Amino acid sequence: MCCFVPLAFPTKRKEAMTGTFVKRVMKSLCAAHGMRSSSSLAKVKVGTDILSIAPNVSLQIARTWDQGVASSFLTTPLVDIFKDKKVVIFGIPGAFTGVCSEEHVPTYMDNADMFKAKGIDFVICVAINDPYTMNEWAEKLQGKDTIEFYGDFDGSFHRSLKLVTDLSNVLLGTRSERY
Amino acid sequence: MCCFVPLAFPTKRKEAMTGTFVKRVMKSLCAAHGMRSSSSLAKVKVGTDILSIAPNVSLQIARTWDQGVASSFLTTPLVDIFKDKKVVIFGIPGAFTGVCSEEHVPTYMDNADMFKAKGIDFVICVAINDPYTMNEWAEKLQGKDTIEFYGDFDGSFHRSLKLVTDLSNVLLGTRSERY
Repeated sequence: MCCFVPLAFPTKRKEAMTGTFVKRVMKSLCAAHGMRSSSSLAKVKVGTDILSIAPNVSLQIARTWDQGVASSFLTTPLVDIFKDKKVVIFGIPGAFTGVCSEEHVPTYMDNADMFKAKGIDFVICVAINDPYTMNEWAEKLQGKDTIEFYGDFDGSFHRSLKLVTDLSNVLLGTRSERY
Repeated sequence: MCCFVPLAFPTKRKEAMTGTFVKRVMKSLCAAHGMRSSSSLAKVKVGTDILSIAPNVSLQIARTWDQGVASSFLTTPLVDIFKDKKVVIFGIPGAFTGVCSEEHVPTYMDNADMFKAKGIDFVICVAINDPYTMNEWAEKLQGKDTIEFYGDFDGSFHRSLKLVTDLSNVLLGTRSERY
């Protein structure tokens, strides 16, 4: 039920990503999890310019309801997340699902320092959940100090990347694919 | 952001509800919250036979992911929830939203004994959330011993009752109306 293929994105809006670092980190992580990196990449190729595929899409940083009210329910455009930064982003099918909570997100948390040492500015976990649910999950995982959590409440980010799938069979509905 | 109109349903599938008890409890609860009961009922009239409107709909009882796996992701048909029982059901826009967590659900928890004394078999809280998120929320509220929590992960229950609304402005997406 989860995902651990890191994708690093261009540091500038129209800059193509070389993918060298991505491939290296992905290869080591996938090997650690016994996965083949090529199959795990699904429909997003290394080098994909996320900002050109989803130019008007925003994510919602994990926060409490009260913080949501205080922020006037502000969202974060992708350009503000990725511009001039090197980011590892990974998607999970849902907050409070088993393997994601017990293994995959903690793996990223445990390797946060390794990512930083390799020049990554921050690691992002994203799911098709509202930001309040994502926040509660992040708090429960004690993960907010090491990685960032974002909601994609309406699935617009994952739809733009063609990374949505129907997980009704496990009572989740439309969610992110494993990536 | 919430809801506190209790609806009691027929004890048998084709039995029409008299609504007397419902009106009395609703009136007192709405008065306590400064709401007019007539406006709060929205599109579901007292006396509505839920089972005839949504004959093939199921809800998903709140549980952990592991319990979901163990149950083979079983869902609960409405007939199994309502048949031969008197039930108070109320809907909320979302787990982990503010007023619902701090006031409305606790109000039902505090009044669980009053409902039982009046012949209600159980009180149900339902939302367009997956059952794992509902479970975490119920645990956080310490509510599972007094009321039951169900998810309506795909919104089919609330759509059948015409009780869905777009709450994208507060980063929730398609959710249940206040009722």
